[in-house]
Amino acid sequence: MRENYFHSDVPLAGKGLPAGDAWTPSRLAAQGPSILEEQVSLPVAVLSESALRHNLAWMREFTEAYGCRLAPHGKTTMSPALFRMQLDAGAWGITLATAPQTVAAHAHGVRRVLLANQLVGKGNFDVIADLQARDPDFWFACVVDSADNVAALGRHFGARGQRIRVLLEVGAAGGRTGVRDEAQARAVLDEIARWPDAVALVGVEVYEGVVKDEAGVRALLRRTLAQWQAIHAAGGFGESPALLSGAGSAWFDVVAEEFAVLARDPRAEVVLRPGCYLTHDVGIYRDAASRIHAANPVAQRMGRGLLPALRLWACVQSRPEPDRAIIGLGKRDAAFDAGFPQPVLHHRPGHTVPADAPAHWQVGAMMDQHAFLQIEAGDDLKVGDLLCFDISHPCLTFDKWRHLLVVDDAHRVVGAVDTHF
Amino acid sequence: MRENYFHSDVPLAGKGLPAGDAWTPSRLAAQGPSILEEQVSLPVAVLSESALRHNLAWMREFTEAYGCRLAPHGKTTMSPALFRMQLDAGAWGITLATAPQTVAAHAHGVRRVLLANQLVGKGNFDVIADLQARDPDFWFACVVDSADNVAALGRHFGARGQRIRVLLEVGAAGGRTGVRDEAQARAVLDEIARWPDAVALVGVEVYEGVVKDEAGVRALLRRTLAQWQAIHAAGGFGESPALLSGAGSAWFDVVAEEFAVLARDPRAEVVLRPGCYLTHDVGIYRDAASRIHAANPVAQRMGRGLLPALRLWACVQSRPEPDRAIIGLGKRDAAFDAGFPQPVLHHRPGHTVPADAPAHWQVGAMMDQHAFLQIEAGDDLKVGDLLCFDISHPCLTFDKWRHLLVVDDAHRVVGAVDTHF
Repeated sequence: MRENYFHSDVPLAGKGLPAGDAWTPSRLAAQGPSILEEQVSLPVAVLSESALRHNLAWMREFTEAYGCRLAPHGKTTMSPALFRMQLDAGAWGITLATAPQTVAAHAHGVRRVLLANQLVGKGNFDVIADLQARDPDFWFACVVDSADNVAALGRHFGARGQRIRVLLEVGAAGGRTGVRDEAQARAVLDEIARWPDAVALVGVEVYEGVVKDEAGVRALLRRTLAQWQAIHAAGGFGESPALLSGAGSAWFDVVAEEFAVLARDPRAEVVLRPGCYLTHDVGIYRDAASRIHAANPVAQRMGRGLLPALRLWACVQSRPEPDRAIIGLGKRDAAFDAGFPQPVLHHRPGHTVPADAPAHWQVGAMMDQHAFLQIEAGDDLKVGDLLCFDISHPCLTFDKWRHLLVVDDAHRVVGAVDTHF
Repeated sequence: MRENYFHSDVPLAGKGLPAGDAWTPSRLAAQGPSILEEQVSLPVAVLSESALRHNLAWMREFTEAYGCRLAPHGKTTMSPALFRMQLDAGAWGITLATAPQTVAAHAHGVRRVLLANQLVGKGNFDVIADLQARDPDFWFACVVDSADNVAALGRHFGARGQRIRVLLEVGAAGGRTGVRDEAQARAVLDEIARWPDAVALVGVEVYEGVVKDEAGVRALLRRTLAQWQAIHAAGGFGESPALLSGAGSAWFDVVAEEFAVLARDPRAEVVLRPGCYLTHDVGIYRDAASRIHAANPVAQRMGRGLLPALRLWACVQSRPEPDRAIIGLGKRDAAFDAGFPQPVLHHRPGHTVPADAPAHWQVGAMMDQHAFLQIEAGDDLKVGDLLCFDISHPCLTFDKWRHLLVVDDAHRVVGAVDTHF
């Protein structure tokens, strides 16, 4: 029997629900309210169940083709139900960005977390040390790029009689975190060696997403691979197999290619960490997917690529001027840092199915609770009409919702997932 | 006895807490963890209790000087504890932006809500009609700017045997919502007249914040006032006194001045709706406050103006290059659409008090979970150091936190407030 990820009994409140109270995902699923029949308060964020399942299967096939492990970046959704879907679809673990995210994932059954960030500050050390004390079988590792941080970790975890797993982070000049050169790497590795009981080096990590061109990405990945090989040759890893991890949501194909040499090597575990593949988008990640499909033979062979699974429905709130509609959808509801939401469907209440939104309908500005839609004088768009929007940048859309409704292809609610930001 | 707003027993989870679980505001207050001693996981959003109380008293004095009512825009904080503080400090009601926000406020004891937006869509009609059915004493009104919307409200609320209060919204050409001219106003008023049992016209409303210059703001306010006077002269209001409402957080002084003619008139109730005064900021609203203090005689007489009460603490996560620090604070934690967070304090763990952050430390970019801080080579800033940031745009900072800690002037936690976005 297929587990149903969208039928939990967690209480839901806030925006994007039908009238009344005491809603839970299971009660929503039982009632099956219709977006098109306006049985839900708008705006609402919806996940297409069919698109989610397609994207899950796509990424599983892709990573298996390369022999890589998948640790999807969970910071994108912070939704335990989606984590479970990803793990059940073969994911090796969940990647996260912060100590509190790790606590939330652990509380919902995640057994292996790769923190693709430095763990910094006594407050965060305490959070992770408490978790490891409560659950010694919980597998956790973070990344390090400074000797100061390694020393602080060593003191803190050593004093508690614990060991913390770390991966050396390699970074690009002008980029974000990560060691820039051999001297910095050496300093970090030397400091790790001073804490044999408290700090275990378990791999090498890189985040290539801050590099903008493919040649630069490949150069960074090769430096990362060489760093792994050098540490391995020196017997520097504290666990075997040792991890080699990279990949945000834009360059995971290139990472798979560059790290392929180690993917089926028993001494290594190559772990990819894309997060946005699950919902995809029609902005930054559609652009990335276009490149992948043009260049990557595995993706080409697989046919249809990732599908946008996260959309927003909102009402036309005002038609104050002939070429302008004000929509009840704002910066509180959708990402706006990588392109505005794009109207894709237009539904008039009472009609049976929505129509495609004309391509010239474009959001030109957003405020906290409103979007300004540019239309043409004479366009048939009325106050009270419904619009469905595709989005760009799932991460900054998810974190605006404490729950998202899951819908079927007829825009009827089949359940919901809650989020833990 | 002074009510304590920050000691509720609501369960807290997620970022910005000490290690362990089962935290509540009251337990936090009892334990009193210190930010400076790193007893809280960073990043964290904090509210200064003393600054909050100063700002509350400031706005009370200001609005009383003009004889205006205050209905603070609650969408800024969506925090019931802060709503209670505002109501106890004399607020007439709470302004909100959406139907679900209204449900949340009602559930936490708010008795009067002015929805400074159109109520649109059957899903949202149902939400409000349910609320009015459950609690007939709950006072609710929304704004209208189209005959279509009035007709839809009339049909829906009439069919349920209910009456909905509406204010005619006046808007500026090129602006957001609101009628642009007399013909649009006439169409809306005529439609209202067709629903005498279901739709009650209780006032006139404007949001002047989309106009950028003072002359334009004053012209819009005068048109709004004239609209109120014309409707009143025609006996068009369904309740007395009739409301005249304006004012976001940037022009509330000008609104108070322009509407002063009706502020002490028994036929009218002048309601101002600023939301950001409670926490203020060092960006868009500091700029607005500078103008107010230069121009407004009441503000000048009151001396010290509004204080920034909402700040963020975060750790230095990486020092990968001499002139760059990566901070564990991202777009998931702070508004970034009206200026980046600005470092104001620098604290080295182990020191007793923080130092002022140098003015040349500036955030130059942000990602989901990171900020890029530009510094100078040789600046004494280490991995693990704490930075306290002022922010610009409270609304889009609040909605990134399910709770905020309340701190005293020594950066010790004295409680917390939860949010309901």
